[in-house]
Amino acid sequence: MTDTFKIGIAGLGTVGAGVVRIIERHASMLAAKSGKRLEITAVSANNRGKDRGVSLDGYRWFDDAVSMASDDDIDLVLELIGGSDGIAKAIVEKATASKKHVVTANKALIAHHGKDLAMAAESAGISLRFEAAVAGGIPIIKALREGLAANAVTRVFGILNGTCNYILSEMNDSGREFEDVLKEAQELGFAEADPAFDIDGVDAAHKLAILASLAFSTDIDFAAVHVEGIRNISPVDMEFARELGYGIKLLGVASLSEKGIEQRVHPCMVPVESPINHVNSVFNAIVCDGDFVDRTMFEGRGAGEGPTASAVVADIIDAARGNDLPTFGVPASTLADPETLPMDQHFGAYYIRLNVVDEPGVFAGIALSLKNHNVSMEKVLQRGRAPGEPVSVVITVHETRESDLMKTLQEISVLEPVLAPPAVIRIEQL
Amino acid sequence: MTDTFKIGIAGLGTVGAGVVRIIERHASMLAAKSGKRLEITAVSANNRGKDRGVSLDGYRWFDDAVSMASDDDIDLVLELIGGSDGIAKAIVEKATASKKHVVTANKALIAHHGKDLAMAAESAGISLRFEAAVAGGIPIIKALREGLAANAVTRVFGILNGTCNYILSEMNDSGREFEDVLKEAQELGFAEADPAFDIDGVDAAHKLAILASLAFSTDIDFAAVHVEGIRNISPVDMEFARELGYGIKLLGVASLSEKGIEQRVHPCMVPVESPINHVNSVFNAIVCDGDFVDRTMFEGRGAGEGPTASAVVADIIDAARGNDLPTFGVPASTLADPETLPMDQHFGAYYIRLNVVDEPGVFAGIALSLKNHNVSMEKVLQRGRAPGEPVSVVITVHETRESDLMKTLQEISVLEPVLAPPAVIRIEQL
Repeated sequence: MTDTFKIGIAGLGTVGAGVVRIIERHASMLAAKSGKRLEITAVSANNRGKDRGVSLDGYRWFDDAVSMASDDDIDLVLELIGGSDGIAKAIVEKATASKKHVVTANKALIAHHGKDLAMAAESAGISLRFEAAVAGGIPIIKALREGLAANAVTRVFGILNGTCNYILSEMNDSGREFEDVLKEAQELGFAEADPAFDIDGVDAAHKLAILASLAFSTDIDFAAVHVEGIRNISPVDMEFARELGYGIKLLGVASLSEKGIEQRVHPCMVPVESPINHVNSVFNAIVCDGDFVDRTMFEGRGAGEGPTASAVVADIIDAARGNDLPTFGVPASTLADPETLPMDQHFGAYYIRLNVVDEPGVFAGIALSLKNHNVSMEKVLQRGRAPGEPVSVVITVHETRESDLMKTLQEISVLEPVLAPPAVIRIEQL
Repeated sequence: MTDTFKIGIAGLGTVGAGVVRIIERHASMLAAKSGKRLEITAVSANNRGKDRGVSLDGYRWFDDAVSMASDDDIDLVLELIGGSDGIAKAIVEKATASKKHVVTANKALIAHHGKDLAMAAESAGISLRFEAAVAGGIPIIKALREGLAANAVTRVFGILNGTCNYILSEMNDSGREFEDVLKEAQELGFAEADPAFDIDGVDAAHKLAILASLAFSTDIDFAAVHVEGIRNISPVDMEFARELGYGIKLLGVASLSEKGIEQRVHPCMVPVESPINHVNSVFNAIVCDGDFVDRTMFEGRGAGEGPTASAVVADIIDAARGNDLPTFGVPASTLADPETLPMDQHFGAYYIRLNVVDEPGVFAGIALSLKNHNVSMEKVLQRGRAPGEPVSVVITVHETRESDLMKTLQEISVLEPVLAPPAVIRIEQL
C-alpha cells in the first residue's frame, strides 16, 4: 500500500481542477481502492499563474505538456487539453510511446483517432481509457465494454448533449423560442459562447461514434454519422408534439441490422411516457439493447467539473490497479470497418409541418404526392382556420424509407399553396 | 487467443441454462473480449436427465458440486444453487481454497457471509464476483465498485425487487387488491409459489445490504436492515397517494450521515414526477448519490434468465482477463463494522390513514396527540361524508423523528372514534 502511482496532468481547466480536488479530498479512500497511493507529480497548462481554486504547490510544472508525457517520474498521463489533433494527440502518442498509461476526456480525439491510438496502446502494453469522453459522470464506457460484455448489442441510443437537452427542456416547459433560450443558457453557463459544436449536434456525434464502436466492436466511423442539430426546432413543433403524445429530444442513435450500422444524431419525437422523455435539463441518458440483458438505461450528469472528474479518476484507479483490458473491449486490431446504412435508407416514421394557404383543395396535391411514393399517412392536424391565409398543417406518416419521404417532400415543397419548405422531425418508437 | 478458461457450473436452473446459451451463442465474441476461449468443462445439478433446453453433452457431470469445486481442470466455479449456507457456501469455500475463481448470483450468501468469503478470496488471490446477485442485468456492482469509485457515496436507493414492483404497478394501474394481483403474478411467473421472500422485502434487503457495503466500504450488515413488505398496501392508499401527488414503490434505501448508516426496505410514497416513479412492471432501478458525480441512475431487468446470465458472464470475462480487484472495491479486511442509525431515529415525512367514525370533534383528540409529540401536520384529506359511519381520513406530516411519530400513533390508536390501527407509509422526497 506504500506504492505510489504518479500522475501528470496536461490541461488544468475545470475538469483538471476537479481531478486535483478529488485526489486531494479522497486520498486515503483512493489508495484503498487503487492499491497504490495516487500522487499528482506534474502538471502542465497554458497559464501558470491563473487562480484555479486549487494549489499547484508541490507539483512539477511543465510549460511543454508533450515533454511531460515522456517524463521518467510519471506512470500515467492525463490529457485534458481537448481537440482532435494537435497537442492533445501529440501528448497521447508521446505518452504511449513512453509506456505511460493514458486517461483522456477528449471525445474528438477518440472519435477521430480511437483505433490507431488504441492499437498503439495495446502494442505498448499500456491502458488508454476515456470514460469521461462520453456522458460525463455516467460510467457508460465501462458498462458497454465490461458490464454488458456478454451481449450482442443491437442498439444504443441516448441524450448525449446536456446543452441541447437543457434548451429543449426549457423550450418545452416555457414555450419560448430557441434563440431566446440559447441566450439564457449561455448566461447560465450551460452553453458555450460559441455554441455551434453543441447545438449543431457535433459533440453528440463524437460521443455516438465512440458508443457505436464499443457496442458493435467495429472501428469508429465518425464521418458516417448523420448529424442534425436543434436550431430549427420551434415552439409550434413543441406544441404539436405534445398534442400528438410526443416530446422532442436530440438523440444519438446507433443501430445494427443485417443491412448495416446506422448512426444518426437529430431531433426526435419520442413517446411522452418513454423513460428517455423524462430525462430533462442538463442530464444525459443512454439506453442499450442487448440480446440477453434486454434493455438497460443509464442516467446522470453529462458534464461539469465534478461528474467529469469522477469519470477521469475512475479510469485512473483502473489503470493504477494494472487491470488489463483492450481499449474498446476487443483487441483494437480486430475492430472491423463498419458497413454503413446510409441515411436515405433509414426506415422510420415522420412528423411533417407545412405552412400552407388555407383554401379548399390544398390537401389534394399533398395527398397525391404521398400516395405516389407509397408514403402512408397516419394523422393530419390543422390549427385553427383562416381562409386565404397561411396556416400550419401537420402530417404524421407511418414507417417509410427516408429516400421516399424526401422525394415526396421535394414535390410537396413546390406545390402552389405550400409557402415554405416543410419542417420535418423523425418519430422514434422506443 | 488459444488459451482456454475452464468453467464448472454448479446449479443448472434458469440462470445456469442461460449461461450455457450465452457461452455457446457468443463463443468467438467472448473469446475476443476475454482474451481466452471460455469453455464449460463440468456441470453439476440435482437432476441429470432434466430437459433444460440446452445440451450438456461434452461437459463432465458431477453429482457432487463440492467435489467439482476442487477439480484440477477448472479455472472458475460458477455457483448458481442459492441459499445463504449449506452447499452453496461449501462450494464457494472449497473453490476458494482450491484457488479457483468464483462467480455467484447468490445474494443471500453474499449478504450473510460476504466479508468472510471476500477475505478468503483475497488471501487466495482469486476473484470472487457477484454482479448477478443484485438487480439482475444492471451492472450496478461494477458501477459502485469501479465506475463511481472516485466518490464518497452518501446514499444509494432503488427498486430492488421486480415481483413487488410488478404487483405495485399493477395495483396502481388497475385499482385491484394486493391478493388478486399477487395471484395473477404467480400465474404469469412473476412471483414464486411461496412469494414471502419477495413480497415481505427480504430479497430486497439482501440486495440493499450488499449495495450499502459497496457504497460505504463497510461490512455487510444484513441484520441491521429495517424490512417491511408490501402486503398491507391497499387500493385506497394508491388512490390517496395519487391525490397527494405520489406513487407507491417498495424501495431499499441506504444512507450515510454523521449519525451513522441507515438501511431500510419498505413501501414509500415518491413524488409522481420523480424518475424512480416511472420505473414500472418488473424493472429494477438503482440511484446513487456521490459527492462529485452527483446523482446517477441505472435501470433494467432485475431478474430472468437472459439478464441474470448476462451479469454472470460479464463477471466470468473479468475473471478470465485476470483483472485484480478487491471483492468490495477495498480490501475486505478493511471493511469496518458500520455504525447503524436505528429505525426509530429515522427522520422523515409520513402518510397516515385512519379509519374513524365520522362524527363532530373526532379530529380534536388526533390533533392534540400530534401536538403533544411535536409532530407537524401538512395535509388532511377525507373521502366523502358518512355521519356516524366509518370513513378514511388521511393525514400527512412534515419531517419528524420516527420514534415521536410512533408514540403519537399509539395514542391515536386507542382514541374512541379510531376503529383500526393506522396505516402508515413513509414519504420520500427524492
